[in-house]
Amino acid sequence: MKRVIITGFDPFGKDEINPSWEAVKRLPDEIEGAKIEKIEIPTVFHKSVEELIQKIELSAPDIVICVGQAGGRFDITIERVAINLDDARIPDNENNQPIDKKIAEKGESAYFSNLPIKAMARKIREGGIPASVSNTAGTFVCNHIMYGLLHYINKNDLAKRGGFIHVPYIPSQVTNKPNVPSMALDDIVTGLTLAIRTAVTVEKDIEVTEGKIF
Amino acid sequence: MKRVIITGFDPFGKDEINPSWEAVKRLPDEIEGAKIEKIEIPTVFHKSVEELIQKIELSAPDIVICVGQAGGRFDITIERVAINLDDARIPDNENNQPIDKKIAEKGESAYFSNLPIKAMARKIREGGIPASVSNTAGTFVCNHIMYGLLHYINKNDLAKRGGFIHVPYIPSQVTNKPNVPSMALDDIVTGLTLAIRTAVTVEKDIEVTEGKIF
Amino acid sequence: MKRVIITGFDPFGKDEINPSWEAVKRLPDEIEGAKIEKIEIPTVFHKSVEELIQKIELSAPDIVICVGQAGGRFDITIERVAINLDDARIPDNENNQPIDKKIAEKGESAYFSNLPIKAMARKIREGGIPASVSNTAGTFVCNHIMYGLLHYINKNDLAKRGGFIHVPYIPSQVTNKPNVPSMALDDIVTGLTLAIRTAVTVEKDIEVTEGKIF
Amino acid sequence: MKRVIITGFDPFGKDEINPSWEAVKRLPDEIEGAKIEKIEIPTVFHKSVEELIQKIELSAPDIVICVGQAGGRFDITIERVAINLDDARIPDNENNQPIDKKIAEKGESAYFSNLPIKAMARKIREGGIPASVSNTAGTFVCNHIMYGLLHYINKNDLAKRGGFIHVPYIPSQVTNKPNVPSMALDDIVTGLTLAIRTAVTVEKDIEVTEGKIF
Repeated sequence: MKRVIITGFDPFGKDEINPSWEAVKRLPDEIEGAKIEKIEIPTVFHKSVEELIQKIELSAPDIVICVGQAGGRFDITIERVAINLDDARIPDNENNQPIDKKIAEKGESAYFSNLPIKAMARKIREGGIPASVSNTAGTFVCNHIMYGLLHYINKNDLAKRGGFIHVPYIPSQVTNKPNVPSMALDDIVTGLTLAIRTAVTVEKDIEVTEGKIF
Repeated sequence: MKRVIITGFDPFGKDEINPSWEAVKRLPDEIEGAKIEKIEIPTVFHKSVEELIQKIELSAPDIVICVGQAGGRFDITIERVAINLDDARIPDNENNQPIDKKIAEKGESAYFSNLPIKAMARKIREGGIPASVSNTAGTFVCNHIMYGLLHYINKNDLAKRGGFIHVPYIPSQVTNKPNVPSMALDDIVTGLTLAIRTAVTVEKDIEVTEGKIF
Repeated sequence: MKRVIITGFDPFGKDEINPSWEAVKRLPDEIEGAKIEKIEIPTVFHKSVEELIQKIELSAPDIVICVGQAGGRFDITIERVAINLDDARIPDNENNQPIDKKIAEKGESAYFSNLPIKAMARKIREGGIPASVSNTAGTFVCNHIMYGLLHYINKNDLAKRGGFIHVPYIPSQVTNKPNVPSMALDDIVTGLTLAIRTAVTVEKDIEVTEGKIF
Repeated sequence: MKRVIITGFDPFGKDEINPSWEAVKRLPDEIEGAKIEKIEIPTVFHKSVEELIQKIELSAPDIVICVGQAGGRFDITIERVAINLDDARIPDNENNQPIDKKIAEKGESAYFSNLPIKAMARKIREGGIPASVSNTAGTFVCNHIMYGLLHYINKNDLAKRGGFIHVPYIPSQVTNKPNVPSMALDDIVTGLTLAIRTAVTVEKDIEVTEGKIF
């Protein structure tokens, strides 16, 4: 039986909820025969990665997917790459605000997700939910945990697959923010379920363009 | 028992469904003790108004709310005003494309909705769904039917209340349209239900600003 | 010799300059043989209209064009219609904040500009500058002065032409506002010059669609 | 005397001009005592990098800045990082459309620009022109040439500084594209001049956040 760890973050900045954890905690316990373990992770540099790795060493998952909020994005975005850099526009939840710091002193400059990111995006869209591949996870804790996860997998040469998914605000977060897009929590849950299903069943990603001009 | 007529449009342009009718047809048959009659209206200049008036004369509703698609808007918008002008950027569903034509030769230049538009917008937002008051219903069939409805009420001095609500695309309409906002059909249905509930129970609109700088 | 009055507003809200007056004051004194008079108008309900009418009675212009800032719009927009309603989201520059007040107790519900708005928009675009026709001037002082001007012309049955143009922020206003569009002041000046040139030389508007679906 | 090479691209896709080259060719021949060499580069994978490197080997510049069009962005963006991946949404100008190909088989997964990117962005903003740091140059030829340049510098351990700047559409490119931002060519030229001035005079970047949440 395959094992999947999927994580969401606690709320940060001025937001009182974080749709990533709201969605993750509503996921089923089993998808395509794989066991789904759900964890809430603190929006804190380094501590987030440490808690994730502890959990990985305990559970020995085949697949690890971290999920975070991208307030302002229109669709579910499967991240392609994480870069070795923290540059925090706001403090994290323990008041750390690193500027232009490497995440891992001897890590590679970037790691690419080894999940079938294009198959995942397509499957979500086929389910009637907007989704795409993104080429930046930012420079805050989302990029940080994605980098930390992939660095851990690569450095230890593990046969695990890992990546990151950004989800939009949910509607209740934008009732006082004019012209900011949102997505229903149910649709985020469905989208994540389709993403996990694809990650569990598809070994090799599809060869179609999901590139961006810039 | 109060009676409410609520209408949605059939699909137009390049869209294969119209979320206005998809949502309207899913509304309950009774809201706050009022009977809800739902009608699909053709996206056709003049014929749309004629079919609506026929239905009004048959059913003698207290309240009439027309609903249309505003593909690209982020929230449910309660329209404040309809203007006496057709200016069609694309042909309607019977290939009419009027340019700068009056809707009613002797009608007023504009009519304001006499629904409690601000109370309706606020109630929807309190339900966790983005909503606001809009000052333009465009110059296509949406503005046309709103104008036709209010002209009919005013010209005949009827004790009826009428107005128009625009709804966003639903997610499945934008899976191939990057960076276009959408709203889940369930949320649109909930939003319209809250709007009707408010229209049925609130006589005098609230005095709060919902104005726009431009 | 034709005479044109063109007005800009003083800054309001949190902005320290108003690109409408910055552009208007840089216009030439003569365009297509017409004399151009430029006035700065206070962003104040009613007083703005009073000052404008005083100036009109003094100068006897053939054409009156008011210009205002539409911070957040992408292009120069020629307004089609003004509605008989003030609904101020923020206070004006003398701290008035009317909510749902008629501008003229016995005025029409709306007035349409009698300028060649579509010819003006096209001419600006042909000059390489984005422009379009808009169907709402909002519910703040911009709509107020446009309504006041057209009400004055209509009520007194004057052979004058009048209307309103909205202009975007200029770049220096958005250096601290991410993802807000702007337009260079030189381009706004050129756009307004082309608009005036068209208003001076074109009697009958062109018959092309500039309509909006919503 | 310092030497700077700055490049722009030829038009690609459906656009008939490319504002990157239009702006670059208007730059002065000397900025802050540095000699400025301007080159037009073909929007073609690999060939773009080859032509750039030939030019570098001929001219021995201290600084190399490539410039490209980011149609849809609101401001001038200084790119932080290039990734080792081509994923072309459209064919380049010689009909190549690589999907998920490494740019350099043995290159690092990403290279960070060694220009003072935050000082450059700030200096442009201080000049009244919107600018920011970006964390993705896309997956088309812009990212490709930035990666190729930085790979060349790193692989050969050269004491050169290099990076990439994306510029928005100019206004004439968007007169038929509603709600797409643009920037005047003069402002792009000024922005690039300020960027080069900063690159020439500032050795160590400033320590301020220019990070993004996502």
